[in-house]
Amino acid sequence: MSESLLSSRNLAFELYEVLDAEALTQRERFAEHNRETFDAAIGTARSIAENLFAPHNRKNDEHEPQYVDGAAVLIPEVEPALRAFHEAGFLNATRDFEHGGMQLPNLLSQACFAHFQSANIATSSYSMLTMGVANLIEAFGNDEQKRKYLQPIIDGRFFGTMALTEPHAGSSLSDIRTKAEPHADGSYRIKGNKIFISGGDQPISENIVHMVLAKLPDAPPGVKGISLFIVPKFLVNDDGSLGKRNDALLAGLFHKMGWRGTTSTALNFGDNDDCVGYLVGKPHHGLAYMFQMMNEARIGVGMGAIMLGYAGYLYSLDYARNRPQGRQPDGKDPTSPQVAIIEHTDVRRMLLTQKAYVEGAFDLGLYAARLFDDTQTLATAEERQSALELLDLLTPIVKSWPSEFCLKANELAIQILGGHGYTREYPVEQYYRDNRLNPIHEGTHGIQSLDLLGRKVSMNGGAALKQLLKLIHGTCQRASEYESLSALRQPLEQLLARLQAVTLALLGDLMAGKVNQGLANSALYLKVFGHTVIGWRWLEQAIRAEEGLARAVAADMDFYRGKLQAARYFLTWEVPSCHHDLAILEARDDTCLSMQGDWF
Amino acid sequence: MSESLLSSRNLAFELYEVLDAEALTQRERFAEHNRETFDAAIGTARSIAENLFAPHNRKNDEHEPQYVDGAAVLIPEVEPALRAFHEAGFLNATRDFEHGGMQLPNLLSQACFAHFQSANIATSSYSMLTMGVANLIEAFGNDEQKRKYLQPIIDGRFFGTMALTEPHAGSSLSDIRTKAEPHADGSYRIKGNKIFISGGDQPISENIVHMVLAKLPDAPPGVKGISLFIVPKFLVNDDGSLGKRNDALLAGLFHKMGWRGTTSTALNFGDNDDCVGYLVGKPHHGLAYMFQMMNEARIGVGMGAIMLGYAGYLYSLDYARNRPQGRQPDGKDPTSPQVAIIEHTDVRRMLLTQKAYVEGAFDLGLYAARLFDDTQTLATAEERQSALELLDLLTPIVKSWPSEFCLKANELAIQILGGHGYTREYPVEQYYRDNRLNPIHEGTHGIQSLDLLGRKVSMNGGAALKQLLKLIHGTCQRASEYESLSALRQPLEQLLARLQAVTLALLGDLMAGKVNQGLANSALYLKVFGHTVIGWRWLEQAIRAEEGLARAVAADMDFYRGKLQAARYFLTWEVPSCHHDLAILEARDDTCLSMQGDWF
Repeated sequence: MSESLLSSRNLAFELYEVLDAEALTQRERFAEHNRETFDAAIGTARSIAENLFAPHNRKNDEHEPQYVDGAAVLIPEVEPALRAFHEAGFLNATRDFEHGGMQLPNLLSQACFAHFQSANIATSSYSMLTMGVANLIEAFGNDEQKRKYLQPIIDGRFFGTMALTEPHAGSSLSDIRTKAEPHADGSYRIKGNKIFISGGDQPISENIVHMVLAKLPDAPPGVKGISLFIVPKFLVNDDGSLGKRNDALLAGLFHKMGWRGTTSTALNFGDNDDCVGYLVGKPHHGLAYMFQMMNEARIGVGMGAIMLGYAGYLYSLDYARNRPQGRQPDGKDPTSPQVAIIEHTDVRRMLLTQKAYVEGAFDLGLYAARLFDDTQTLATAEERQSALELLDLLTPIVKSWPSEFCLKANELAIQILGGHGYTREYPVEQYYRDNRLNPIHEGTHGIQSLDLLGRKVSMNGGAALKQLLKLIHGTCQRASEYESLSALRQPLEQLLARLQAVTLALLGDLMAGKVNQGLANSALYLKVFGHTVIGWRWLEQAIRAEEGLARAVAADMDFYRGKLQAARYFLTWEVPSCHHDLAILEARDDTCLSMQGDWF
Repeated sequence: MSESLLSSRNLAFELYEVLDAEALTQRERFAEHNRETFDAAIGTARSIAENLFAPHNRKNDEHEPQYVDGAAVLIPEVEPALRAFHEAGFLNATRDFEHGGMQLPNLLSQACFAHFQSANIATSSYSMLTMGVANLIEAFGNDEQKRKYLQPIIDGRFFGTMALTEPHAGSSLSDIRTKAEPHADGSYRIKGNKIFISGGDQPISENIVHMVLAKLPDAPPGVKGISLFIVPKFLVNDDGSLGKRNDALLAGLFHKMGWRGTTSTALNFGDNDDCVGYLVGKPHHGLAYMFQMMNEARIGVGMGAIMLGYAGYLYSLDYARNRPQGRQPDGKDPTSPQVAIIEHTDVRRMLLTQKAYVEGAFDLGLYAARLFDDTQTLATAEERQSALELLDLLTPIVKSWPSEFCLKANELAIQILGGHGYTREYPVEQYYRDNRLNPIHEGTHGIQSLDLLGRKVSMNGGAALKQLLKLIHGTCQRASEYESLSALRQPLEQLLARLQAVTLALLGDLMAGKVNQGLANSALYLKVFGHTVIGWRWLEQAIRAEEGLARAVAADMDFYRGKLQAARYFLTWEVPSCHHDLAILEARDDTCLSMQGDWF
């Protein structure tokens, strides 16, 4: 088959036609870069992903990590893959040159990382978590913490984890019970149990830096009493050498439906009253710090969901082109040769749906990555703040929309392969199992919907929402210059107008104290908001495709026509379906709110 | 937890309040039965399912069948479960008393079998296939075939399979290549390869009766040249003893994502030119015969999908009632105790959606089962024919709707359990994996949509469709007597009117020869038709619930209120969503039809 990880033509379209990555090189931070350095990084990522990540993706699944004598044992292929990833510079892709990084834009770093996620989501997860921990310590750690924990991470010697969830609390972080007692030497003694800690143990890195949420003795109740601690697997001496094993022990592994290559661990801190931790930043500010990593992770989860969808789409597309079966409804002569199944309209529907979901979400994911660059490198503080607000608003969409719809794409990929798709002899069933995690971790779907409606749309007087609406209107405006796009623009405009009105109405409920009513159908709000955003991104892509068509050579014509057809699919088949959801939201329908537990 | 397989209160509601099972005992064939005998059969089924099927459901998954020395090896728990199933009479539940059966209505047989499907879909599949083969031989086999193959099946000694699919043909049966050469003794020599044959080998039964589709040397091309053969694993001597091993060999096992306990086999017939087969019925009529078994199997698949959905729903309901986490949006005091997650509106939404899907489909499945009884036991040939037509029309819905929406229910069950739901320590992820097979086997989703729109709605001048519309109108009429149901009735009536119109329009396309256009969006048609049918069944349940409420004692009030709320959910949240699909159908939207393979 041609390409298995992602379409490099589509990636080039995103980077250089839609998101104008080259414009970033005008900014001082990226002045050393140009399209050649970008493409070189991407080429290296593709090569390592294809050669060292993809080959053990199935083996990760078939030979999941084992718990042996208090430690997790992994298949041997994971370590060299992660080493090559580090040695090629991808762990530090965005870090300063002077700190050993490539000083790439986040947009490019995400584009590179997408290859690894597509090739092997489980192995790539160790790196994603480690990058998040590095950024967290860099932002909030003190100099000693940076020297003892950040530098070894940059050097590829330590990995990291985020340790939030506890058995009795789950998503309700305000109820965590892990305690941190001050110790005479300025460190803390940690005591508590965490579950579902990804990468919580592995035999690859010399040390593991757990970023642990815990409560100090004087902590106020709830989320305002959470502090953040560094809890290393092995203590680190002042000279940087490893000291004794910390009392942070692997209690066991969870056995997952998919994503099996990433250890999901239960960790016991302080079972022997000797778990040393180090406070990061100020007491009781831990959740705010952790949200930096969580926001990064949420975008990472969204990108992971997209790339699992992408891998399944490309596989099923290749299969559909090469698998002969049946005939057209109007050509039933049984002596005629069978046609490739891509000729069947319903198979095309399933491919087009996948393309619309996957490439729509991929565009949004990269858009968010570029927005992150804006938060760091735009000229004025005001511009950077504005970018940050927009990114905050979009984060629940970037996380949740692909988790739902790229999973649906994987479901369709299986369907195209039929009975074969249901067997483990083909890769699509694993993508489906792997992807099912994404609506759960890093804030469930339900939590994303509450974050969006209960917090993000109204923050700072709705500034981010206004900014987004302006951007969407701008795209609609530009689309109106193309007669060919009017049928795509109108459904988006109709949806947008109604979404604005319902947003105001629901925020009115919340301000009037009708909180349960206002948030009751937040899941529908999340879907409509997500479809609006993806519809916007498709209209943007359609404009670029029209521009491309005007100058394209023959081979590229097909690419742009496919883009326009996928935009048409999303904007006319998917977007208008939201009016039904909007009607329910407008009516403050209380079917779910008024249902009683005893009635089930 | 309370009940794990299905709600016995809901089953009683279906049998005795909605479908009036007791009225069947007025028919001569069922005159020996009454509610007590029905309930006794159900109680036995529940007991065996709970005690012998459910306990090894996970083990079936963890220890899938192995290919050892040309044979399939299963875990030891399967055999005693199936033996108990047979000894309790469930294999022959509907068969005549004089042939060793219980002469139960099909409705009751399905209600009993539902327990086994819920408890262990993989183990129950061996029986489902065997029952289908028995019915097929009974209907079309000659006396010798009945003596040599049917009687040992009834006696529980032989199992059966249906062997249709071939590697290069898949769903396109007209392209099968398996050959049958006449032999001097009146038997045939079979040569060909079949794949995905469920139960194609197992170490449980003394013999396996494969029902094989193959082509005679003089066969006309396509489906009109397909004949049906009995191909036993071991030849059967005239005295009923087993003869030599037939040249029908296990080539290998497929390794599936779920449903692992049922062997999925590749079978080679005649590798050594010595595979003996026996023609069933007339030459070239094989597909018509096989359709009896396929129709049975399609309803069986639908019921299986429902019961997997049901098992997941009940598990997640129990979990939601017992898992404390978080607080209401309007009660965020972190020092207050956490509430059970069933108190969260979004969790209720996910439970209510599951209930609406699972219990709506369950009602339809049992309705179809009762319709099958009508095809056998109504007084006049005309009435029986009429029932048969309605059943034919509904079969693609019974097969496909639960395959799609009860899979969605399983997805929601996982979501309610959060991280736990994604682990193999809890059962819901297996239900999800198991259920993903159902949109594929026994005719894919796409094939069901073509069967419905391209064949069933127009057959016999649309007689079955008219019958269905009349029934739905009748239900709406009765619902109009309840003021409380008007908000539920109206969405169904609106959908129905538009579905009728679009049906006529699409059939007009087909009659005008615009076949590709008319069938292009058949997937949407299938969804709308299915939602109409399930909406009808929910309105019917709502009427019965109103009747029940009028006479209910306190404990039962909750049950009926839950029914009304689920009906409200389905008719106001789900049914109106179809108007968007109808608009696409009405417009003959050609987004998928005009998409070109090269554009992807």
